[in-house]
Amino acid sequence: MTFTEQLRAGWLVGRFVCVGLDPDPAQLMATTRSGDMAARITQFSRAVVDATRDLVVAYKPNSAFYEQFGPAGMGALQDLIRYIHAAAPGVVVILDAKRGDIEHTNEAYAAALFDVYDADAVTVQPYLGGDALAPFLNRLDRGVIVLCRTSNPGGGELQDLPVGQLPLYQRIAELAETRWNRNGNCGLLVGATYPRELSLVRALAPSLPLLIAGVGRQQGAVREAAAAGMTSDGGIIVSSSSAVTHASGGPDFAEAARQATLTLHQQLTGWLSR
Amino acid sequence: MTFTEQLRAGWLVGRFVCVGLDPDPAQLMATTRSGDMAARITQFSRAVVDATRDLVVAYKPNSAFYEQFGPAGMGALQDLIRYIHAAAPGVVVILDAKRGDIEHTNEAYAAALFDVYDADAVTVQPYLGGDALAPFLNRLDRGVIVLCRTSNPGGGELQDLPVGQLPLYQRIAELAETRWNRNGNCGLLVGATYPRELSLVRALAPSLPLLIAGVGRQQGAVREAAAAGMTSDGGIIVSSSSAVTHASGGPDFAEAARQATLTLHQQLTGWLSR
Repeated sequence: MTFTEQLRAGWLVGRFVCVGLDPDPAQLMATTRSGDMAARITQFSRAVVDATRDLVVAYKPNSAFYEQFGPAGMGALQDLIRYIHAAAPGVVVILDAKRGDIEHTNEAYAAALFDVYDADAVTVQPYLGGDALAPFLNRLDRGVIVLCRTSNPGGGELQDLPVGQLPLYQRIAELAETRWNRNGNCGLLVGATYPRELSLVRALAPSLPLLIAGVGRQQGAVREAAAAGMTSDGGIIVSSSSAVTHASGGPDFAEAARQATLTLHQQLTGWLSR
Repeated sequence: MTFTEQLRAGWLVGRFVCVGLDPDPAQLMATTRSGDMAARITQFSRAVVDATRDLVVAYKPNSAFYEQFGPAGMGALQDLIRYIHAAAPGVVVILDAKRGDIEHTNEAYAAALFDVYDADAVTVQPYLGGDALAPFLNRLDRGVIVLCRTSNPGGGELQDLPVGQLPLYQRIAELAETRWNRNGNCGLLVGATYPRELSLVRALAPSLPLLIAGVGRQQGAVREAAAAGMTSDGGIIVSSSSAVTHASGGPDFAEAARQATLTLHQQLTGWLSR
């Protein structure tokens, strides 16, 4: 099945949550018992996957948090993605790498992210334009999620700049919907902290999956964002990272991660079924 | 010495060339004798460094071409940067990774690129704004080279969009010069294929080093770009990748790389001294 087909199958059975898997050195030391960092990443992440796999549509490891451990961290990432494919078939892996270079270089990135690490989808930068994204977009079975409106406070410095009638991030939503999605595998990343912006993005990109990132414990914004992004067949991937994986800083971290995931899952299905 | 001090010291003795080190599987198989891919990368890149180190101000490995070989490729990258620091002291290593995420995540990227891989400078994406770049910019001894106008044909799809009076890439040049360079360690990446755009960038960012990327064999554009970017103390890092490393596809690749580097070096010093 392609990325898009897997997503739709997940939405059909009411799965909208994505768990972000971002290993943090301090958290790993506090929650795992022994071994080098790579072994601790494996121990921690597998336990979180085991505790949440029946509740989620996606996992989202962020590459930065593996890269910080050097080549061994990349080995742990490769191992983790392999584990998710085996233990949670049907759940997509979005490798949050925010890559972006010229076309020739993106061929090497696509080989790395899709072949070596076997991600179902990746996040990418829009700044070099659609032609540069071809090596990602031409992989028909994989997903390409373009940064649109990010959740950081200063995200607007560029993203809100007016380009003709629209701010830049809306222009990107429009380009993704009309030009870049020719293979039906494009999505957009929008921060959960901006529900109003998210509904404007949805209006301009009615057919694209939206990855709603940075969901913390604040319910209000998530509810609004989810409602604004939802389409008749699903349309949203609601991603929460530390609110799930850091729900407990102790040895009961996996149980606590399940509870946090379950709460988000129930909120989303409750709100969305109304 | 900081990145900026090393650059200035290189310019002072007439070094402007940067050699891009982007391992290519086919090229490695044709030019190196035996070993796995990591060993071949090491063999190839060290030979190029040995043949060119007296002529250059910088080396620029592009992360994608190491990532495509998985964790072993990252080990080879780490080894290569260590080798350059030992064999070519004073020559800066620009890790061309084009990273960009929110601030918290960029802390992990900065730890990876500056500490684990020990790059003197990195290339970064502007799309998340200046606040997100803080973990890079706050490393006073390292350089942060922001994508401004890239060399790909479709780079203008976003970069040329008019934002008020200026196209987006010029607005970025302005932001980098006025807001993001508070620690004096910011630079800009501009494609060598756009000499006119480069002179407009230089006008808006008089104090920033310009990494002029994608220099091939076409002399004209390089000459114009170099002349447009040059400042009284140097100001330019002129980067050539495959035109140097693929100058020969045979066992004389290192000699051919030296010849190509020398030609570019002589052209630059000849043009710039007039």
